[in-house]
Amino acid sequence: MSRPESSLSIALVGPGRVGRSLLERLQAHAPETWQLMAVADSTRLRRGPIERSEWAQPFADEAFQPRASDRDWQDELLRRDGIPVLIDASASAEVADAHADCLARGIHVVTANKLAMACPSSDWERLRAASERSMYGISATVGAGLPVLDSLRELRRAGEPVRRIRGVLSGSLSALSEGLSVGRRASEVLETLRRDGLTEPDPRTDLGGLDVARKLVILAREAGLDLSLDALVVDSLVPEELAALSLDSFLRSGAVLDRHVAQCVDRAPGSGRHLAYVAELEVDGRACVGLRRLDDGDSLAQLSGQGNRIEVTTECYAAAPLSIEGPGAGLEVTALALWRDLVRISESVRRCR
Amino acid sequence: MSRPESSLSIALVGPGRVGRSLLERLQAHAPETWQLMAVADSTRLRRGPIERSEWAQPFADEAFQPRASDRDWQDELLRRDGIPVLIDASASAEVADAHADCLARGIHVVTANKLAMACPSSDWERLRAASERSMYGISATVGAGLPVLDSLRELRRAGEPVRRIRGVLSGSLSALSEGLSVGRRASEVLETLRRDGLTEPDPRTDLGGLDVARKLVILAREAGLDLSLDALVVDSLVPEELAALSLDSFLRSGAVLDRHVAQCVDRAPGSGRHLAYVAELEVDGRACVGLRRLDDGDSLAQLSGQGNRIEVTTECYAAAPLSIEGPGAGLEVTALALWRDLVRISESVRRCR
Repeated sequence: MSRPESSLSIALVGPGRVGRSLLERLQAHAPETWQLMAVADSTRLRRGPIERSEWAQPFADEAFQPRASDRDWQDELLRRDGIPVLIDASASAEVADAHADCLARGIHVVTANKLAMACPSSDWERLRAASERSMYGISATVGAGLPVLDSLRELRRAGEPVRRIRGVLSGSLSALSEGLSVGRRASEVLETLRRDGLTEPDPRTDLGGLDVARKLVILAREAGLDLSLDALVVDSLVPEELAALSLDSFLRSGAVLDRHVAQCVDRAPGSGRHLAYVAELEVDGRACVGLRRLDDGDSLAQLSGQGNRIEVTTECYAAAPLSIEGPGAGLEVTALALWRDLVRISESVRRCR
Repeated sequence: MSRPESSLSIALVGPGRVGRSLLERLQAHAPETWQLMAVADSTRLRRGPIERSEWAQPFADEAFQPRASDRDWQDELLRRDGIPVLIDASASAEVADAHADCLARGIHVVTANKLAMACPSSDWERLRAASERSMYGISATVGAGLPVLDSLRELRRAGEPVRRIRGVLSGSLSALSEGLSVGRRASEVLETLRRDGLTEPDPRTDLGGLDVARKLVILAREAGLDLSLDALVVDSLVPEELAALSLDSFLRSGAVLDRHVAQCVDRAPGSGRHLAYVAELEVDGRACVGLRRLDDGDSLAQLSGQGNRIEVTTECYAAAPLSIEGPGAGLEVTALALWRDLVRISESVRRCR
């Protein structure tokens, strides 16, 4: 059916690399009726409506104030005519904690921040219920927008039971595994990835498997399965002695990291010649993420670069899984995923008015 | 947001293998409020409401009449309280011709029949416009419900330009290519596939490339690109002397078919050792389908069984395409695709009431 776009009143938190990439896209392509009402980073807040010519550089003219209560601009969003939307492009636990409240108050949320969807079981029901009140756009949280969460949601709504999810879910660990497979040092590969913006702010979030574990929890929950982080077996590539260091100290400890990762490679289960950091979930709840050795014939062994691949086995997709593959990291695809969720909100909410 | 299901008033045309598989699923799993108001095959019509216990065998008790005008039961659908839906599980050109009319009248259409979406350019605008009035569920027409059409639609709505589509789009030709690669005869592979219900009613529709060509047209149109069948270069595996025969005579001409296919294999472009029947579309409009020899490293060369794989290159997905892979034929996955489209209609239309 025809879905004319309706106007959005947008607040964006976290104008880092992904956030700025999205702001550039919004400045260039958003319908004229969309308004940018607030932009906040960890310390500053710019209130709007902001002139469109300034969207991509919201703090450039110093017309900002210290960020205090978020409640003020959330209230302001709800008072506007447009459909209120919070974009969370931060990695902040505090902002993630606010998702459920915003959704419950009628503010739609679009997020690249995984922390809320991967929350402890005790918080999950509240978030799930709130996401029935408003739209919760989470495409960017797994696979940098690959259409896997949409597919799992469709399968769940169709009552099709998911039996197994298996995949390579981290663009940076995919590139790292490929580098290790051809004999490169972990610290060296990591340095390149960090420079290109392809790791989390602290690369230990990737290396430790926590980022992949969160993605597996999100996939499971979107499929209607019960999984939380504490039920997951996570094989970390971060040596214990580097876990508590400051980020700078960690980045200067390449030799220690390389020795530890080499041991992980030696100990990795499997017998093939391809290395991959694999996430696996069975319907009975067994779930793990870790480095594996894969045979040549394994579909996950064919990936290169920042490639992700997610394989979903269901009752109908039993003999051969439904598989989705593509780049799993990168500014452009992540910003596109956020943008797509915004367009979907503007189309869906209009239809129901 | 929460999307409670609302009641559907359903008519199904084409209770063949796929249609019956869907009727079984409906009988077992449809919400109680859904009603089956009519079932028609090429000659018979059963009017409803039909008792749910009879949905899977609608003609078993001979309570049917000759199928005359479809207009009668379409009018009846529109008079009911529920959301009117036509399910087209036929391969009939006549039923396909009615899609645009039904959609324009407010009857939602869910189809496994490719003929309407692959119609000539002159008819396309009317169908496209009608599909803005009602919902048009076409998931089952390409890849037996793999989420590729959804993904292309999302990309189009997000304004993300598609540059290239490349893929293996036929489950039966995928299995045939695999058989040929290991030296089996075409007629022998085809016989097995036909017995398992994995070819079109007349397997020449598969072998001639027309079925794949139609799928490529549907993919292109869903991506917002302009393509019609007459602009496509199609390499047929059907020898000219068998093209006009009756189906029975064709099926008895295995030796002629095998000689011709062997020549096609010898002449296939490319130098690798894998055979695949590949569909390709460039944004400038060049489009072709045909047998190709693929190198080991080609992602399309990794497929086995009835596997399909569709690779979409866009502005953001430039370095590595967005790829979707899975079984591209089969009763269960095709019926699941139709069912998913029905669930989507029941949820979406309810939201807007």
